[in-house]
Amino acid sequence: MSIFLFTDFGAADVYVGQVKAVLAREAPGIGVIDLLHAAPAFNVRAGAHLLAALAVQIPAGSVTLAVVDPGVGGVRDAVVAEIDSRWFVGPDNGLLSVLAARAAKVAVWRITWQPDALAPSFHGRDLFAPITAALARDEFPAGRAVRADRLQVEFGATDLGEIIYIDHYGNAFTGLRAHAIGRDTRIVAGGDALAHARVFSAVPPGEAFWYANSLGLVEIAANGGSAAAKLGLAVGQPAAYSA
Amino acid sequence: MSIFLFTDFGAADVYVGQVKAVLAREAPGIGVIDLLHAAPAFNVRAGAHLLAALAVQIPAGSVTLAVVDPGVGGVRDAVVAEIDSRWFVGPDNGLLSVLAARAAKVAVWRITWQPDALAPSFHGRDLFAPITAALARDEFPAGRAVRADRLQVEFGATDLGEIIYIDHYGNAFTGLRAHAIGRDTRIVAGGDALAHARVFSAVPPGEAFWYANSLGLVEIAANGGSAAAKLGLAVGQPAAYSA
Amino acid sequence: MSIFLFTDFGAADVYVGQVKAVLAREAPGIGVIDLLHAAPAFNVRAGAHLLAALAVQIPAGSVTLAVVDPGVGGVRDAVVAEIDSRWFVGPDNGLLSVLAARAAKVAVWRITWQPDALAPSFHGRDLFAPITAALARDEFPAGRAVRADRLQVEFGATDLGEIIYIDHYGNAFTGLRAHAIGRDTRIVAGGDALAHARVFSAVPPGEAFWYANSLGLVEIAANGGSAAAKLGLAVGQPAAYSA
Repeated sequence: MSIFLFTDFGAADVYVGQVKAVLAREAPGIGVIDLLHAAPAFNVRAGAHLLAALAVQIPAGSVTLAVVDPGVGGVRDAVVAEIDSRWFVGPDNGLLSVLAARAAKVAVWRITWQPDALAPSFHGRDLFAPITAALARDEFPAGRAVRADRLQVEFGATDLGEIIYIDHYGNAFTGLRAHAIGRDTRIVAGGDALAHARVFSAVPPGEAFWYANSLGLVEIAANGGSAAAKLGLAVGQPAAYSA
Repeated sequence: MSIFLFTDFGAADVYVGQVKAVLAREAPGIGVIDLLHAAPAFNVRAGAHLLAALAVQIPAGSVTLAVVDPGVGGVRDAVVAEIDSRWFVGPDNGLLSVLAARAAKVAVWRITWQPDALAPSFHGRDLFAPITAALARDEFPAGRAVRADRLQVEFGATDLGEIIYIDHYGNAFTGLRAHAIGRDTRIVAGGDALAHARVFSAVPPGEAFWYANSLGLVEIAANGGSAAAKLGLAVGQPAAYSA
Repeated sequence: MSIFLFTDFGAADVYVGQVKAVLAREAPGIGVIDLLHAAPAFNVRAGAHLLAALAVQIPAGSVTLAVVDPGVGGVRDAVVAEIDSRWFVGPDNGLLSVLAARAAKVAVWRITWQPDALAPSFHGRDLFAPITAALARDEFPAGRAVRADRLQVEFGATDLGEIIYIDHYGNAFTGLRAHAIGRDTRIVAGGDALAHARVFSAVPPGEAFWYANSLGLVEIAANGGSAAAKLGLAVGQPAAYSA
């Protein structure tokens, strides 16, 4: 069993270590894996589609702390969801909802517990990390949560026709799942209509193309360079397919 | 027991892995937590105030390797300090001194041991990591250090009226502790006098404000955007309060 | 025993966590150390020289997943190499070849195994990580690889007169090993001919110099600032010495 972290806290920033300090204290000896701390900041919808694609890589039985939470300290609820045998802890702001909508089996709990000290701006450390640790110790709900019928904010199961993530090579992930799209389809993004290639080395150096990436998403890439820089792509821009 | 790392080595850079290789060899099985590797480079005073605020999150009994060390290879000493039941290892250049000055109980050792191979530019790997591992194994001082009366470089306990850190969202931490500041106080930074808000969602999108952050520091933030970009803030700039 | 990771996957990006999920599943309980995920992207030769210098820090008996692989999904082979009692897993594109050429003892296996699901763009997760885990469990080759005479792509043992890495302080590492270079030699890079200094604090603030860095390489640095910014240095630029 491992604990996974999916946040917009920044891998290099001051927040992740504080979360890990809580986990080390409250769930000692359990491994913690940084799945991603560069989820697009302030963009819950993009994060929800990225998490839905990444979650396939999370083994059953694991607990994932998932926090992209621009409304922290405001009125949104805190939830735990068991989604196809994986546990997720985070805000009820839509972040877990794409994954949940595509799943076969979902159960939701609303967190009722409040820690003695709760920083209004850092529920990740003070609220979500202790609940994550309790799940990892198999001590949940233990009076800290009540069953709920469903998530309150739901984005639905359908694909998102937008750039949802740009990696450090400059590859642009879309919220479109590739399995249903024919290889002769063109993807329109940033004013260009891009053809498919199977791998980077199948196109000339510098040329942009789309392919089914390792998460099953349509990705816009360039061979040996940055597609985002070449095409002027940014998270939130539309991406669509045309036959 | 965990080992914590607080440095300006860069989370993505070539240095942290080398420190961890030493710790894995000399303190096998002990967890290592990256508290921060993005302490402001070359700025020991800002790092000292940031460490003093972060140290509250470090559990008693832990060992922290703390290195912001622009004078590495020069004349400054290397020290171990037990500060309110937490151990710290690092250069005697002021970095530990704010934390020490605010503590109830401090004991200092001067490191006398020198490793056979000591790279003049990387005491973190060759000197501080082995001492950190020895502390984690409970084998200290073991002839490697002598008691000292105090740190040689001391910045004192008082707040620092400067920006000491900017996080990846663009929030600017100051060296001012928030507990003593009234909520009707304005904070002056980058030419603006900012009012208080409790949480991000309490102000209109894009608006800048100050609040007591999750480390207890006065932080300048903006709702859904970068306060640092909006106000032109950088580490080292003055930040003051006016009634 | 630890597993080390040396890649260009980006420390903050979406790839390393997926590799670690595989390792946690297939080699549970074995520590994983991020040696570097910021190897220069697309530049196998620079990565090969950087890995050769860093490998000294890897303890004997360890397994290192080493991936800088712009040709992933194309025709290059996948290999395992035992180099001076350290195991390495990665593409046969030259990345391991500088280290191997300088070693006393090298044995090479060509990976013949293919996983059921192999993303053409992420052999790190689907192919190299399972083989790394098998080595860490001491279950190799187990029918997954065959002995080979040598690596197919070989860059040789000689130094590389180029900038191979720029760290986050702005220090520029060259592919020149320092042990054979006299301290009165000047290093020419970016149009400047730089003199030697032993440590940063030995030159005036802001001044650029070269020194033997903690990996044994000639490094171009500046006291308290970025040598790369000051001198306009980038990975791939020539660096040479003149008596």
